[in-house]
Amino acid sequence: MVSAEKETKKDETAELARRRGFIWQAFEIYGGVAGFYDYGPLGAALKRRVEAKWREFYRREGFYEIETTTIAPRPVFESSGHLECFTDPAVICKRCKSVFRVDEQIGVGASCPECGGVLEPSGEFQLMFQTRIGVAREGTDAQALRKSEGYLRPETAQGMFINFQRLLKFNRDKLPFGILQIGKAYRNEISPRQSLIRLREFTMAEVELFVDPAEKTRHPRFDEVKNRTLPFVPNEGEPVEVRIGEAVSQGIIANEYLGYHIGRVDEFLECIGLPHDRVHFRQHEKDEMAHYAMDCWDAEFLSEKYGWMEIVGIADRGDYDLSAHAASLNIDLRVRTETGKVVPHVIEPSFGLDRIMYALLESAFYEEPLEKETRRVLRFKSDIAPIQVAVFPLLNRDELKSKAQEIVELLRNDSFFAEYDTAGSIGKRYRRQDEIGTPYCVTIDYDTLEDATVTVRERDTMKQVRVPIADLKAALV
Amino acid sequence: MVSAEKETKKDETAELARRRGFIWQAFEIYGGVAGFYDYGPLGAALKRRVEAKWREFYRREGFYEIETTTIAPRPVFESSGHLECFTDPAVICKRCKSVFRVDEQIGVGASCPECGGVLEPSGEFQLMFQTRIGVAREGTDAQALRKSEGYLRPETAQGMFINFQRLLKFNRDKLPFGILQIGKAYRNEISPRQSLIRLREFTMAEVELFVDPAEKTRHPRFDEVKNRTLPFVPNEGEPVEVRIGEAVSQGIIANEYLGYHIGRVDEFLECIGLPHDRVHFRQHEKDEMAHYAMDCWDAEFLSEKYGWMEIVGIADRGDYDLSAHAASLNIDLRVRTETGKVVPHVIEPSFGLDRIMYALLESAFYEEPLEKETRRVLRFKSDIAPIQVAVFPLLNRDELKSKAQEIVELLRNDSFFAEYDTAGSIGKRYRRQDEIGTPYCVTIDYDTLEDATVTVRERDTMKQVRVPIADLKAALV
Repeated sequence: MVSAEKETKKDETAELARRRGFIWQAFEIYGGVAGFYDYGPLGAALKRRVEAKWREFYRREGFYEIETTTIAPRPVFESSGHLECFTDPAVICKRCKSVFRVDEQIGVGASCPECGGVLEPSGEFQLMFQTRIGVAREGTDAQALRKSEGYLRPETAQGMFINFQRLLKFNRDKLPFGILQIGKAYRNEISPRQSLIRLREFTMAEVELFVDPAEKTRHPRFDEVKNRTLPFVPNEGEPVEVRIGEAVSQGIIANEYLGYHIGRVDEFLECIGLPHDRVHFRQHEKDEMAHYAMDCWDAEFLSEKYGWMEIVGIADRGDYDLSAHAASLNIDLRVRTETGKVVPHVIEPSFGLDRIMYALLESAFYEEPLEKETRRVLRFKSDIAPIQVAVFPLLNRDELKSKAQEIVELLRNDSFFAEYDTAGSIGKRYRRQDEIGTPYCVTIDYDTLEDATVTVRERDTMKQVRVPIADLKAALV
Repeated sequence: MVSAEKETKKDETAELARRRGFIWQAFEIYGGVAGFYDYGPLGAALKRRVEAKWREFYRREGFYEIETTTIAPRPVFESSGHLECFTDPAVICKRCKSVFRVDEQIGVGASCPECGGVLEPSGEFQLMFQTRIGVAREGTDAQALRKSEGYLRPETAQGMFINFQRLLKFNRDKLPFGILQIGKAYRNEISPRQSLIRLREFTMAEVELFVDPAEKTRHPRFDEVKNRTLPFVPNEGEPVEVRIGEAVSQGIIANEYLGYHIGRVDEFLECIGLPHDRVHFRQHEKDEMAHYAMDCWDAEFLSEKYGWMEIVGIADRGDYDLSAHAASLNIDLRVRTETGKVVPHVIEPSFGLDRIMYALLESAFYEEPLEKETRRVLRFKSDIAPIQVAVFPLLNRDELKSKAQEIVELLRNDSFFAEYDTAGSIGKRYRRQDEIGTPYCVTIDYDTLEDATVTVRERDTMKQVRVPIADLKAALV
């Protein structure tokens, strides 16, 4: 049962996220369209910093990023299986003609949530957005029309698979190698929910790691993760909290490559500040797995609003994709290894960045009773906070304002995300920065002009210290 | 006239870009689709670094980034004028039914480039990609079908205009303020050319600066750019090379805001390494301007292959967009200023990142005759090069390899883009790094194990120096 206090907290998070410019319903002035959200100035800043951390994290593994198109022609998705398998069953209301996705509550024979009418089967609904590439128009013959069909990608992955030969050559014909991509993906959901949890347009950050199947059982850096203890929810047997090394040796996780990347995902989520005790790893049920997956583990975050929700999938796609494209095109995508020619297997950690943004906002939000008021704080880690430091002149006087602006300039030239604020009392300015998660506030007063020191106030402890300007940067880390 | 030598050079650039993993025709294994390109590992790395510089550059102006959706519903583009005005005239071949965009060579009555047939008018072709949002399908009534129409955005700008009220509030109801966005945009070109110059899917980096029209004539930081001398090609009168201050006072550029941002664009292009003498600023002809523009200047790059080509547009959009949305929705988007209520004007520097990538590759490419061979070099600035440093063990021995890997790790942990390479002779490895523009190569030999020094070789001069490992990072800047 969710307590009233928690209920309040989760609603306040959403309200704060909207009011302070993190996340906005898209096209609101045009009435809004379900499943589309925009990131406001603070949301976009937070997301850029999470993306930068993610790139840095996987670049250290020696993986390379690529950037492929979001539109692809029909044959790509014929081969990948998405045209056939990437669908949801739908029902339509006999009376009001509303269409719904079939789920636990909604199905054939149930009553329509809109008007109470009877729901009838409406077939499988293709989840990819379709468009036309080039000049085919109505009246064009069927073959030309089909040839012009394009789809918005439902995952960034296919762009990496269809470039496999070039990527292999770039890696000088050697396995394993890893490829990254961050970009938009699209699902034309039948009934998207009002939040970042089920969007029609969203951002994926995906890794495709191509590996010799014979080598999957031994990862060269497995020692770095094997002693990390994680809560696992396997699809057979009981949930268990064990070290990754044990999970692999007991066969809970199939191989070291999958285990290594589950461990790295957990490390990443911790490094951006998600509370470790609100993340577990759940194995997909056999009938739940995507059409391409041999095995799949979801990193799930325990949301107060949505319960356990998927934020990262770590899939073993086996040789599904490369074999599918090879078969469609009648080409050979095997790689010569020491033991012969093999189709590489693919390990794929796939991050849903919008859900991670939601999880970050929800878990960072705290309300703290002070003497006369309640302080609302977003406790972001200082290296992902949208604004790293805010600079205030104590009074609205020219000499203090110009000094404060000088310090903002100084910090910005040193790549700090620094904001300048003169509006309202210092107390009010502190509260505003608390609400958007700024870890430090710097105040300029008349002493600053005398002795070149400033007051630095820390967000979580609210402690203030006097610091020489020369030491300011070091004090903000 | 293009000399034979230049002809060779430009073809070599394209070949090198493809072979070394900068830019690839998309869907090549599926036969390719015109107007779609992918960035390979080195291209994506270069692009990410240019984007990071761009963000940094405009963040110092105090501008905020936002992120809006790439799909938008029909009414947004009805209001913005894109549905009506964003079209190209097309002709169709009577005989083979090929469709072409009308240009200088191709028009009604001309002969078909494909088969020689006669070209007939084929009306205006809408340049936005269309899709359907949600469940409307064939057989749905016309009104529901129209309601479900969505389009892929042709520019990132509209997402900023339709969020204007929220953005104004975020800026506490004060003008001016600037908003940034980097993202995909789409144009369903009738006949895209085979290169990064006219793509169907491309990346824009756009600034929308909202300003009180009465303040456009005075930019608070105009002094910072006014002495910069630039070549201007106005739409009336002769090309002229003058300081920006003079260009504004002579009325060549209409106001200080436009002048300031033209200057900043030029600075940015210089800072990423485009040769200053291959950029000029050309004012759009009156009949050439987009439907929303009051005035527009293009930063053009002098390409050896394509001649002068637009890489950045700096437009004064006036109050076109805000007024258009306000009129469609019957809402008030005016802002209270000291002199009354006004609809803000918009100054928009809009960067075509793919063309900038092309310009960077073309202008960085050099061929240098050495004694026995020709050295091909990409002379990227070291802070945008895809790989900053490559580390080689001199010999393929375990103790040298592990030392080299240790140094790669050290550099990567310090956020360097570092690559490790053992393949082939040192000379061959140098050539490979020259070709991809890596500014420094570091070689580990047996002396390294004795005295902790390494050899650092600089790309352009090919000079080698011996450096203690402790001083390595400082030597790589």
